[in-house]
Amino acid sequence: MFTFQVTKNDDASAARLGRLSTSHGVFDTPIFMPVGTQATVKAVTPEMLTEMGAGIILSNTYHLYLRPGADLVERAGGLHKFMNWPRGILTDSGGFQIFSLQGLRKISDEGVVFNSHIDGSRHFLSPQIVMEIEQKLGADIAMCFDECAPYPCSYEEADQAVTRTSLWAKRCRDSHNCSDQALFGIIQGNIFADLREKSAREITALDFPGYAIGGLSVGEPKEDMYRILDLTHQLLPTDKPRYLMGVGAPEDLVEGVARGVDMFDCVLPTRIARHGTAFTHRGKLVVRNAVYAADFRALDTDCDCRVCKNYSRAYIRHLVKAEEILAHTLITYHNLYFLIKMMQDIRQAIAEDRFNEFYTNFYASYKF
Amino acid sequence: MFTFQVTKNDDASAARLGRLSTSHGVFDTPIFMPVGTQATVKAVTPEMLTEMGAGIILSNTYHLYLRPGADLVERAGGLHKFMNWPRGILTDSGGFQIFSLQGLRKISDEGVVFNSHIDGSRHFLSPQIVMEIEQKLGADIAMCFDECAPYPCSYEEADQAVTRTSLWAKRCRDSHNCSDQALFGIIQGNIFADLREKSAREITALDFPGYAIGGLSVGEPKEDMYRILDLTHQLLPTDKPRYLMGVGAPEDLVEGVARGVDMFDCVLPTRIARHGTAFTHRGKLVVRNAVYAADFRALDTDCDCRVCKNYSRAYIRHLVKAEEILAHTLITYHNLYFLIKMMQDIRQAIAEDRFNEFYTNFYASYKF
Ligand SMILES: [Zn+2]
Ligand SMILES: [Zn+2]
Repeated sequence: MFTFQVTKNDDASAARLGRLSTSHGVFDTPIFMPVGTQATVKAVTPEMLTEMGAGIILSNTYHLYLRPGADLVERAGGLHKFMNWPRGILTDSGGFQIFSLQGLRKISDEGVVFNSHIDGSRHFLSPQIVMEIEQKLGADIAMCFDECAPYPCSYEEADQAVTRTSLWAKRCRDSHNCSDQALFGIIQGNIFADLREKSAREITALDFPGYAIGGLSVGEPKEDMYRILDLTHQLLPTDKPRYLMGVGAPEDLVEGVARGVDMFDCVLPTRIARHGTAFTHRGKLVVRNAVYAADFRALDTDCDCRVCKNYSRAYIRHLVKAEEILAHTLITYHNLYFLIKMMQDIRQAIAEDRFNEFYTNFYASYKF
Repeated sequence: MFTFQVTKNDDASAARLGRLSTSHGVFDTPIFMPVGTQATVKAVTPEMLTEMGAGIILSNTYHLYLRPGADLVERAGGLHKFMNWPRGILTDSGGFQIFSLQGLRKISDEGVVFNSHIDGSRHFLSPQIVMEIEQKLGADIAMCFDECAPYPCSYEEADQAVTRTSLWAKRCRDSHNCSDQALFGIIQGNIFADLREKSAREITALDFPGYAIGGLSVGEPKEDMYRILDLTHQLLPTDKPRYLMGVGAPEDLVEGVARGVDMFDCVLPTRIARHGTAFTHRGKLVVRNAVYAADFRALDTDCDCRVCKNYSRAYIRHLVKAEEILAHTLITYHNLYFLIKMMQDIRQAIAEDRFNEFYTNFYASYKF
């Protein structure tokens, strides 16, 4: 069963501590959720995720629906069992992926017709169908099927997406009937303040156990994202978790927490790892660069993860140049650990009434 | 310091038990050594190797010489430290790779001129230079620089390779001066019995602490390989370890042990893993095949490895189809475990005077 409790509010910001309970564990917030698009967090094992302290991971309904299919996952005993992950799972609704697809698709109030990116086959998804799929996948948290407007888009487009997202949210709520899965609503509205207000009003009226802020981090300037966050968190109930979708840059986690966000997910740490880039306390480090060829220090000299304790930049750069899989594994491990540890540090700072100090120190050492 | 002791001889075959001591651990033989070509066993971590019971791994001098270079590995504190592998390492000499290179190269009694497969740059390696490189890498066991004749080849070519291998073995022995590294000689001679005899006589006369049988498993029929093994093990001193290079098919391990071999290495388990094929007690299983799409059994129902305990064929097939790195990791883990466990079972069978029974049972269940 799903519950959420705010355990502390920061005096100097909207930051807060909370506790999410699911049937796959209890998780402290603010939390960063690694992304396991195709029922695996790329390049790491579930044991590594456990070791690095990951709590909830996100998996993508669009991808799993196409391959291997929700029925197969259900027959396997659900996503937890299928992928051997005993802790929390959140599934998105596929909306973001489908609305990002190139080429033919047809959107109506009933749902979306689209072509698979794998084989071009034609598919139709509606709010009701997506609920069936997400319930078969069996995540602890499911997301409503929403329409995510692109950036940039006109006010009219954004407005229509808000209207349809509300319509679909109601249909999702009405057809969702799995008591062991929490269904979150999603606020849209692009960068338009009044549309965010409208969306928040309509979605919160449906009384979901949690709310996501969607349609940000889709290409808009950071100031717009922060401005919308400043506004939106005030429109959401204080006793429900707030999830900022698709955000995972270290500075955005800090800014998001300061604006009352409890949950984050992003492919950034795993994606940049596969391109040979590591997070460090002093900013990003492109370990594939020649300057690290004989650098026997850890990726991040301030990190105590298993990778930083045992492997040098020189070795990891060698692996990157030699195109070895272990390069992906080691950098991914460190990058995920970096964000998970950062969220732990943030939680501790909030608990000790020094989140403001954490914020200042972060910007003093992290270089862009 | 390197020592080897035969602890038991099988009555019914040339199989034997032994114990290798190195400054990075004591290892029971017969042993299978996973291959870590570029200072990493592809797709698995050192922690996984430890967990699966790997003792000695092999790394390739040719590859490490070209990238990242022996000097860099030496500056890192040697290969063990560089790659975070605390147990045994054997480095080959690069001979096999260089003689397999396509295109320009020039061989003389002095050494070999060849072009890098990475960037085409020109290089010269001699027995003395290879010894310097292997000592910088700092493996527990180094191999002499040898000339490996291709299959098929003429008697004259094979004879010349034997002569040059003997000449180079002496030069290797005379220039090798690292007391903490054992230098093994290599027997060549292709599929010609009298050349194998000549090579064994000349190489053993140089009194190495161990002997490898090279130039097999290079494309010749299995009968030829077994015939040469039948002959060669009788030409080698009984108190020194015997290493059959490049052999790792389950049936060849069984046949090799029966012919007095103590050590094996091969890329087969890691390579076929990356193509979606797993070893099982009943033969190879191509998990990418559609027939396994909804098969929720383990890769090998008779295996107790971490992968077989936690993941299904259906899940691993999904990972293969979705081109996820975890597919490589899981199948590689299982395949290496399979061979390592098989060698444990073989050792136990020899210890309990039932190697013959093991041999019969293996062929009764393993399908080709
Ligand atoms: Zn680290
Ligand atoms: Zn297994």
